[in-house]
Amino acid sequence: MRVLVVGTGLIGGSIARGLRARESAWALWGSDADPAAQAEAEASGVFDGVGWPAAFTPDDLIVLAVPTAAAAALLPTLTPALAAGATVTDVASVKAPLAQALETLAPALQARVVLGHPIAGSERSGMAASQAALFQGRRVVLTPNEGTDPAAVARVEGLWQALGATVETMTIAAHDAVLARTSHLPHLLAFALVDALGADPHREAIYRLVAGGFRDFTRIAGSDPTMWSQIFSSNGPALLEALDRFEDTLGAFRSAIAARDGQALFDAIARARAVRDAALRESFGANHDV
Amino acid sequence: MRVLVVGTGLIGGSIARGLRARESAWALWGSDADPAAQAEAEASGVFDGVGWPAAFTPDDLIVLAVPTAAAAALLPTLTPALAAGATVTDVASVKAPLAQALETLAPALQARVVLGHPIAGSERSGMAASQAALFQGRRVVLTPNEGTDPAAVARVEGLWQALGATVETMTIAAHDAVLARTSHLPHLLAFALVDALGADPHREAIYRLVAGGFRDFTRIAGSDPTMWSQIFSSNGPALLEALDRFEDTLGAFRSAIAARDGQALFDAIARARAVRDAALRESFGANHDV
Repeated sequence: MRVLVVGTGLIGGSIARGLRARESAWALWGSDADPAAQAEAEASGVFDGVGWPAAFTPDDLIVLAVPTAAAAALLPTLTPALAAGATVTDVASVKAPLAQALETLAPALQARVVLGHPIAGSERSGMAASQAALFQGRRVVLTPNEGTDPAAVARVEGLWQALGATVETMTIAAHDAVLARTSHLPHLLAFALVDALGADPHREAIYRLVAGGFRDFTRIAGSDPTMWSQIFSSNGPALLEALDRFEDTLGAFRSAIAARDGQALFDAIARARAVRDAALRESFGANHDV
Repeated sequence: MRVLVVGTGLIGGSIARGLRARESAWALWGSDADPAAQAEAEASGVFDGVGWPAAFTPDDLIVLAVPTAAAAALLPTLTPALAAGATVTDVASVKAPLAQALETLAPALQARVVLGHPIAGSERSGMAASQAALFQGRRVVLTPNEGTDPAAVARVEGLWQALGATVETMTIAAHDAVLARTSHLPHLLAFALVDALGADPHREAIYRLVAGGFRDFTRIAGSDPTMWSQIFSSNGPALLEALDRFEDTLGAFRSAIAARDGQALFDAIARARAVRDAALRESFGANHDV
């Protein structure tokens, strides 16, 4: 098998490093639209080839490791590779724009596109931040539909299993709704909090007096603006629905604060703590760092 | 000097461990209203005495290391110690209730109460989580007023400097407004997010699919419900004002998402990232973990 990683940033670089460490039988190609990034990928020594191969075969797996909108724009350009029998997958955090782009392809070509999303990442960007073990023990969501070729799904599953991940399948709508809640909404809140503080009249004292809790809470606000503006733009309906639900709960907290209702606040905080613990146990196992 | 730490939890325990490691000339006493916590403090071997000394002298410094409301309730009971010349300080994250309690004391006694707040902490609780270096390199805010005895202020400054912290002074109103923004609002958002997810119809998939960003963002949602319900109840006006400002900024993000205005989102996210970096540099130095 030959794997072509399109986009040699954090995710693409980590896929390549992980495969290099675990699957020496596979050929690895890397391509990036940014010449500096592609040169960095070449210099890393992780890839067997860089750039875009001249021809594709059924032994090829193309992994689009670029932000959502870029992946959707690339998909129609892959017609020759798909016609040659290659399988295509992606890693984008929002699947709806890719599903739309997919519909512009002929059904026989669509069948070899398996949309996916590894539930792992970092606020850091670029090949330099990539890690061979990024997907080890993590979950990957694939969103095949009734027209997707089972052999293509199996090939993409094999990629993620080689990287130590567990694969599950969901519908695109469910994926985008869940990710809106677990990832996109927390990022939105962190960005908005920090943006508000930058415009605050108490700004100077605020900057002096942040502590470790703030640092952890806002770590995701250090994430890449290109990627996140695309995610917010492309998952708008699901994100705004998640935001509405959050605002309902926040409104209940607001009322309890205004009423100085210590018991209601205690109950809600204790409940939140239990939910966090349950979610981390489910996703990270018993030894998560509460 | 003798230091009596009232409340041998995370903060009180860390003060005691830090002083034990750095200031062997000072006698250390520890007291806790919870018999199990006081027994744990005694067993730790950090204290020279446990419980409440029979008498106080001008060489005594009493540190109230209990939540806001408990500290405010304790203050009037310290009249005999203050009358004997002892100095009193505290560590609470909201100062307004303590300022109110302070006004019930005679002015001569008020003069030896120096309200304060170390800008350091953890989502963990209890003596077992305490660390000698918790305050090393951190800032401590003191909020003396025109009636506070400068010698008492100097004594409390000496305590924090012995623990490796830098002391600054602010008004109580400024302190409570700044902490509402840097600490109380982030906690509120984290609690509300997690509480909302616990009631979400997608809950099962949400629990399976959280990643490292969620874990960091919600770490503060693991904090103690007793302490945080008190903080929210006692800093209501400042917290709700901070929340209103945050909601204005969040509303701008919401509009940009609904309009799919990628450029506005990119600009706001890039701005937020720069603000975070500036705040962390100011509070933690150049080598903070962005």
